[in-house]
Amino acid sequence: MRVAYHELSDTLRRALLTTGLEPDRAALCARLIADSTRDGVPSHGLNLFPRLMTMIRSGVVDVRARAARVSVSGAVERWDGCGGVGTLNAHEAMGAAIERSREHGIGCVALANTNHWMRGGTYGWQAADAGAIAVCWTNTFPNLPPWGADAPRIGNNPLVIAVPRAGGHVVLDMAMSQFSYGALAAYRSRGETLPVPGGFDRTGQLTRDPAAIEASGRPLPIGYWKGSGLSIMLDMVAAVLSGGRATHEVPAGPEEETGVSQVFVAIDVESLANHDQVTRVVDAILADLQVRYPGRRTIDDRARNLEQGIPVDPSAWRFAQTCASP
Amino acid sequence: MRVAYHELSDTLRRALLTTGLEPDRAALCARLIADSTRDGVPSHGLNLFPRLMTMIRSGVVDVRARAARVSVSGAVERWDGCGGVGTLNAHEAMGAAIERSREHGIGCVALANTNHWMRGGTYGWQAADAGAIAVCWTNTFPNLPPWGADAPRIGNNPLVIAVPRAGGHVVLDMAMSQFSYGALAAYRSRGETLPVPGGFDRTGQLTRDPAAIEASGRPLPIGYWKGSGLSIMLDMVAAVLSGGRATHEVPAGPEEETGVSQVFVAIDVESLANHDQVTRVVDAILADLQVRYPGRRTIDDRARNLEQGIPVDPSAWRFAQTCASP
Repeated sequence: MRVAYHELSDTLRRALLTTGLEPDRAALCARLIADSTRDGVPSHGLNLFPRLMTMIRSGVVDVRARAARVSVSGAVERWDGCGGVGTLNAHEAMGAAIERSREHGIGCVALANTNHWMRGGTYGWQAADAGAIAVCWTNTFPNLPPWGADAPRIGNNPLVIAVPRAGGHVVLDMAMSQFSYGALAAYRSRGETLPVPGGFDRTGQLTRDPAAIEASGRPLPIGYWKGSGLSIMLDMVAAVLSGGRATHEVPAGPEEETGVSQVFVAIDVESLANHDQVTRVVDAILADLQVRYPGRRTIDDRARNLEQGIPVDPSAWRFAQTCASP
Repeated sequence: MRVAYHELSDTLRRALLTTGLEPDRAALCARLIADSTRDGVPSHGLNLFPRLMTMIRSGVVDVRARAARVSVSGAVERWDGCGGVGTLNAHEAMGAAIERSREHGIGCVALANTNHWMRGGTYGWQAADAGAIAVCWTNTFPNLPPWGADAPRIGNNPLVIAVPRAGGHVVLDMAMSQFSYGALAAYRSRGETLPVPGGFDRTGQLTRDPAAIEASGRPLPIGYWKGSGLSIMLDMVAAVLSGGRATHEVPAGPEEETGVSQVFVAIDVESLANHDQVTRVVDAILADLQVRYPGRRTIDDRARNLEQGIPVDPSAWRFAQTCASP
């Protein structure tokens, strides 16, 4: 089932208005969720919308809260997300990092006490659209065992790196887990095994069986000990810079997760090299690679979905429509 | 075989003096190489010294070259390594990033046209010793196939993240390959299989057999497609910011690799939180983890090697001694 971009965005906007979110903020939040869905990432767009509404209704996400700048140290700022809507907080934080980068060449905003940012790539595309290189990441609740342990004590801490380019930005958006629980469930429901080992089974053996990993609760970090270490560092830097919660302090569970910490770095690359020069360097790298690069599929999906309509999960779409017409 | 720190450092210093490197720079370079060896990373310390001398003698590394600042955009600087000694260039670049961070809260130095930085962790420890959070990375010659290809077209691009802490910094130093060729050779010579799949064999099957991966030339990036994407982004950002070479432009081969691009970011965390606060946050994270954290082994190795002497590879040590007493 496909719906037009405007219909998706407007339905989400009207649904968000019913929560008391201010009109301009409801429109922005709806656009960001619709954009992620349009870009071929419904798992972090429309399909997360029911969870967002649940968390607003349960009071975990406060639609009246506005992110506030807490302290400034040159190009580095600490912000408090005040428990508000994660997408709006993250969008504002990346916007502030981009502004700082125009003054200082580079800007860094550390955001405490915020909520799930939905698609991390959103903020990479935002920065690249503004001509900036971006690096940003979030911590999460403990959802992954560190290397050497069997209980979840690290987050999958998605990391985003974006480079602007004429003809389509290059945007990496990757969690530190090899497969998300959502991906494991999708493989299982299709009766497929994973293309590569994705975790341990209950006996501690590496396995490609998604159900065995769901049962053990031991999905793998990327690169085993390496992704485990990277996840730890991302969490540590986010908590230290923001003054907010580290992973072990974030309430566990998809609908309980709140008060996460995030870091947004923007670099004003155009103060170093003009846009054509940047594009030439990026084009040369991509031409040499001869493989699909990060963000390539997004560009294709976006074009196709704008033309043909955006594929929507029927139940998430029905949920949004019901919210919009109470 | 073990030698005292001072003996190792002084021998390297005298060996470097014979190349025409200025005395203060020979002493610093010797200290950095001795430190890496003392810290339990001889593979990127003394054991790389013969290669460094070969590259100095062949003219690939120019001991007379000094890194120079090319342009400034606020807290972001472009430097030209001028083909000089990689460790000295990297040390100077991280030093400049730390200085910029004290003015702007954050500093970023992009270094073009430099040489192998030996142990990447060196510059993380340097920043953490100065009280800064650091993120730095280098590109390399193409030594790893990207996901979806079988020829080496991406670099293993080591990434370093460091957080300062009383009682021992936390420093991650990891390449984007699951196992280096050096590690594969070590497993093979011990007759061991890898603990996890490390690459493809000639038939395209994932394997734990180190010899099969050496034969195919297809080691794995960490996390398969994920580390491949991360390697691409690190290369792209380094080349774009520095104006230097991307991986595909770096001459291939350990003794031919030159003109690599590097990025050094330092954040003046103490302008946001005092040292005790940072240490408390980091301690709480590490206490919760209950597993060995990045940098932990370094602290142990350093203490033991300072007390008992530094284990040295006999042939590399003999080489250094011979160079020092021509």
